Amino acid sequence: MKFVPLALAFAAFSFSAPALAQDDLSQKTDGNVVARAASPDGKLTVTISLDNEGRASYAVQRAGKPLLTDSRLGFLFTDAPKLDRGMSVVEVKRDKSDTSWNQPFGEWSTIRDNHTEMTVRLREKADLKREMDVTFRIFDDGIGFRYTLPTQANLKHANIADELTEFAFAGPGTAWWKPAYLWNREEYLYNKTPLDAVGTAQTVMTVKLADGTHVALHEAALVDYAAMNLQRAEGNTFKASLTPGAGAPKVSRDAGFSTPWRTIAVADDAAGLYAASRMTLNLNEPNKLGDVSWIKPGKFVGVWWNMIKGEWTWSRGPKHGATTAHVKQYIDFAAANHIPGVLVEGWNVGWDGNWFGNGKDMNFDQPTEDFDAAELARYAKAKGVYLIGHNETGGSASHYDSQLDRAFKYAQDHGIPVVKTGYVTDAGQIERVDPDGSQHREWHESQWMVNHHLRVVETAAKYHVSIDSHEPVKDTGLRRTYPNWVAREGGRGMEYNAWEGGKNPPEHEANMVFTQLLGGPMDFTPGVLSLSGSNGSAIKSTIAKQLALYVVLYSPVVMAADTPENYAKYPREMKFIRDVPTDWSDTRVLNGEVGDYATIVRKAKGSDDWYLGAVGDEEARSSTVTLDFLDAGKIYTAEIYRDGPGADYRTDARHSITIETRQVKKGDTLTIALAPGGGEAIRFVAPGKKARRR
Amino acid sequence: MKFVPLALAFAAFSFSAPALAQDDLSQKTDGNVVARAASPDGKLTVTISLDNEGRASYAVQRAGKPLLTDSRLGFLFTDAPKLDRGMSVVEVKRDKSDTSWNQPFGEWSTIRDNHTEMTVRLREKADLKREMDVTFRIFDDGIGFRYTLPTQANLKHANIADELTEFAFAGPGTAWWKPAYLWNREEYLYNKTPLDAVGTAQTVMTVKLADGTHVALHEAALVDYAAMNLQRAEGNTFKASLTPGAGAPKVSRDAGFSTPWRTIAVADDAAGLYAASRMTLNLNEPNKLGDVSWIKPGKFVGVWWNMIKGEWTWSRGPKHGATTAHVKQYIDFAAANHIPGVLVEGWNVGWDGNWFGNGKDMNFDQPTEDFDAAELARYAKAKGVYLIGHNETGGSASHYDSQLDRAFKYAQDHGIPVVKTGYVTDAGQIERVDPDGSQHREWHESQWMVNHHLRVVETAAKYHVSIDSHEPVKDTGLRRTYPNWVAREGGRGMEYNAWEGGKNPPEHEANMVFTQLLGGPMDFTPGVLSLSGSNGSAIKSTIAKQLALYVVLYSPVVMAADTPENYAKYPREMKFIRDVPTDWSDTRVLNGEVGDYATIVRKAKGSDDWYLGAVGDEEARSSTVTLDFLDAGKIYTAEIYRDGPGADYRTDARHSITIETRQVKKGDTLTIALAPGGGEAIRFVAPGKKARRR
Repeated sequence: MKFVPLALAFAAFSFSAPALAQDDLSQKTDGNVVARAASPDGKLTVTISLDNEGRASYAVQRAGKPLLTDSRLGFLFTDAPKLDRGMSVVEVKRDKSDTSWNQPFGEWSTIRDNHTEMTVRLREKADLKREMDVTFRIFDDGIGFRYTLPTQANLKHANIADELTEFAFAGPGTAWWKPAYLWNREEYLYNKTPLDAVGTAQTVMTVKLADGTHVALHEAALVDYAAMNLQRAEGNTFKASLTPGAGAPKVSRDAGFSTPWRTIAVADDAAGLYAASRMTLNLNEPNKLGDVSWIKPGKFVGVWWNMIKGEWTWSRGPKHGATTAHVKQYIDFAAANHIPGVLVEGWNVGWDGNWFGNGKDMNFDQPTEDFDAAELARYAKAKGVYLIGHNETGGSASHYDSQLDRAFKYAQDHGIPVVKTGYVTDAGQIERVDPDGSQHREWHESQWMVNHHLRVVETAAKYHVSIDSHEPVKDTGLRRTYPNWVAREGGRGMEYNAWEGGKNPPEHEANMVFTQLLGGPMDFTPGVLSLSGSNGSAIKSTIAKQLALYVVLYSPVVMAADTPENYAKYPREMKFIRDVPTDWSDTRVLNGEVGDYATIVRKAKGSDDWYLGAVGDEEARSSTVTLDFLDAGKIYTAEIYRDGPGADYRTDARHSITIETRQVKKGDTLTIALAPGGGEAIRFVAPGKKARRR
Repeated sequence: MKFVPLALAFAAFSFSAPALAQDDLSQKTDGNVVARAASPDGKLTVTISLDNEGRASYAVQRAGKPLLTDSRLGFLFTDAPKLDRGMSVVEVKRDKSDTSWNQPFGEWSTIRDNHTEMTVRLREKADLKREMDVTFRIFDDGIGFRYTLPTQANLKHANIADELTEFAFAGPGTAWWKPAYLWNREEYLYNKTPLDAVGTAQTVMTVKLADGTHVALHEAALVDYAAMNLQRAEGNTFKASLTPGAGAPKVSRDAGFSTPWRTIAVADDAAGLYAASRMTLNLNEPNKLGDVSWIKPGKFVGVWWNMIKGEWTWSRGPKHGATTAHVKQYIDFAAANHIPGVLVEGWNVGWDGNWFGNGKDMNFDQPTEDFDAAELARYAKAKGVYLIGHNETGGSASHYDSQLDRAFKYAQDHGIPVVKTGYVTDAGQIERVDPDGSQHREWHESQWMVNHHLRVVETAAKYHVSIDSHEPVKDTGLRRTYPNWVAREGGRGMEYNAWEGGKNPPEHEANMVFTQLLGGPMDFTPGVLSLSGSNGSAIKSTIAKQLALYVVLYSPVVMAADTPENYAKYPREMKFIRDVPTDWSDTRVLNGEVGDYATIVRKAKGSDDWYLGAVGDEEARSSTVTLDFLDAGKIYTAEIYRDGPGADYRTDARHSITIETRQVKKGDTLTIALAPGGGEAIRFVAPGKKARRR
């Protein structure tokens, strides 16, 4: 028995697209369009409508073709009726903006932010008369929208059970995604499935529609809110599914706030999607830290790969990795190779017990007896190198909270400009202890953890320390606002290649660059030139690909992950790792297909040199690129590191590499021939600066 | 950086099936089988193993073929480490049981319960040393398992964030499922998709594997716990996803309890799956109510369809449905047609405002002025008919809680043996008010609502009232324990056919019988012989199919949903509705394919008559059935109601029907020819009792 479901039934069965009204607010608010706005170039349009029940939805068209059909908007609360039905439009505000801003470091020196903006204020017609704003920013290559719950009498505090936000794709497609809510946080391989075979996905989720259009769903500026996942409802329709926390509401906040931006990047191809990802940064607030000249992007080596491989230990004992002697060896190696940073893991007290999921013994300013902190600080400084700290919490986040000032004071006192953090525990197992002593279990991307991470980053900034978060909350572009949040893991990095059972497949990096890395930099730890993990197990890569990763996978802090002993065996390849910078003035994706291949060129900051990185998958691939990005009238020396004769990730020939130089100029073409599991790296040395010879 | 993920990686990449150990406990608990048990016929086996991390999983084989591969077991808590890793086996207990029990009413008089049982007690080896039992009951046609968290020092109270339970299908298949967590509770059409294209599904989910094996996932005995949904994780692997509630834990209970049974029914075909569904009843506790002779299964008519169609109103006014005059007309009609019950909706005070999602004005013992309760009680009794009550809560469950005794006292005082309840509000919008006055929003299948429904049923039993819950918690076989919980809606019933935009497709009932109805009876409200809803909109069914539904869709309380005026136009068909009983001594599914067709025969309780119902989908279908179920040596008169010449749900010929009689005997064959959207109903009248002639 029901009366209202009569209308519900209509809604459920209504597939007809609403007729488009004028650009301005139409007064037809009964199942009709109430507002529309377009991108600066007019190609992307957003249409807001209200159905017969007064439920708001948005739809997206691109070049007149439906991209997303009517997709709902609204909130479920744990203690109040949902904000959904019976809405009316109070007003529609419009704006335009075309500005540019500079990154202190990054993939591009300057980023343009050119968008139109439309804010629709909705109000319940009866009962509580609650209000909700939805603001859309429409770029030529994507859309961001967010909700604002203004301060109001009948919604003083929002206990959000979930969002009602939908993303209803107009047609079928192929999706690259990794699952949400499982045991292993974010560290899954990306699945490639039909769009309508996605389960519940983390973002970034990348979609290639039937007509070739590429779309990436993600979010920007995730602050004081739970991360958004995408639950496929039916067919090609997804709904927002916020990450749970320890409390009943997934988000609990006083009204008078805005949600993160829900982002829909759109492009003709994978390369365009990479460029469209700048929207994520544009939707974040500008730098809040002021002078950030103390932030040190750069490469680093580290006392780490030997632990990951199982040869050294984090804990004390005969195989302890973080000894004064080992670290001095790494400092020497870094200095000799002009690598500014040396990461040391396992340097502190707290690793001796079962620390997985339990970091309560961790002490972040107390080194082990065999780690002479003062001497190493002195030694590093004398060699022109800095140490990179490491704070592994074992997921005991409150325990870390209680030591933050101490931890970063320790770092500052020892000349440590970057700290890598870690939250190694399973999904849903973060330890939170409230001031009243009550214990809770949090998810890695819950509202509380989102706030925890920002506490860490803001506290670190006070001590001029940068943060490289592992097992983090996903990257939503906050590096713009907090430039010292230099990188994150949050995905399946090189470490899986250390493990005999866990090798990443050859397509992995061509997946990552067009999925997770659209969200921001990843501390992937490339450069394992030995191409072998524990017990000599083979990594599914050629050696040239390891070099290419330094260009393909952007991060302001990038590891040379292999050991000094191994690097000593590959002096010719090591030159590229020495040469390649970590900061760029320009970036262009020359070609690519999600999960198949990608060719990216970047221009070194403060230099006219360009670098090219190309990675493929398990197939041999060849593509021709035109060197249009070079300056006209200059002859560059291309130092080419390409897959050599017979190179193949499946055989011992994975180490086959051809290193050669060529003179090239703007407009020349180059054929990039990738071996199975292969890659190619090139440094284009600009004239006027002598290319160093091997 | 991680140490333990090394082993995690192994676990994630281990696809090899564990070698099967002895039936008895093997001491190999390091990545190996620790216990195995088989069904009484030996065909179904369950294997428990522990991986290298000490995580427990179960696997299922059928006739030596993997059905489910290693599927995890365990719990996430909101305030304690998860119960997952580092487990050891304390002991394995085994048992066997082969008994039979009688249903007071139902599809079968007697149900056999023949199973083996295995309980594995697991204990954490270190740290908290918490214990968890997993008990498997293995039937020839299915498996049920549940957890028990015993009383113990380090787990006094369980605040369960979710279960870790998995169902990892060994191979691909086709799934019939409806989505969970969306706006419209349980009332979705079933999707048919590849197994690996399921999103998050409610149970029952029915699966047909590549080799034709049919599997249904569901649960039994859902008491003081949140309902289980199935979230597809990756590929063909699902994980349990408990329904959220208003509190942070999805389930909160003192230790010393068992979860509901997670059930896996398995059969060679859809017909076998229907029979296997008896496992759900077998896994519930026996009748707790004692003498239940006061429970009245039976047919009913009602002041309802005219409201659903929009011609009368629930609220007071000139079109009010529940007037004394209207109800007397329905009582007269019921009495004339030997239909014992008359449902009246809109009889009470509280309907005049916007009651959808807000039933706070509802008063369950106060009739409207135009409904003379005393007179109608007298009139009905004089005519040998009883009224069926209706308590629509509008989702205000606490408001209903506060009136339960009054409501059922009122029913008892007025000779009302059955009350239909309703919870018409959107998913996640149930109103709960705690004794301290705090307000919360609950989901229809949260732990709190599971408990609410049982409060309703138990209170009703005190007053000898039966409950027919609409917008309920799903049926998990509790009718065995509480026989007065006679039926539920919880799915998409005939009412959708009243609405112009919402018509059920022809395949709908052939879906329902092999999906939702595997969980228990549904108050589907068949028998709309006019085949038309609001404004004369056509229902996608032939008239013969409307009769067939009385046999195909079992429920102890079954409506003849159309109006007396409409039934007056179909006196020949009305005879079948008069004849067909609602209680059976035997049931057999002769043939069927999920979503395509089903032919079911049932034997009338206390009679030798059999009834046959066959329903199809949008295609014309023909099947031949052998009348093996009839008694040998008897000649039966088959009263056949079959699709007539040109019958087709798409045309006015949907009313074409052929009604004829034939003499048949055991072993005869009958061809069942279904029109598009068609059906067939037959009464086999046993000799010695004169078949009533039209």
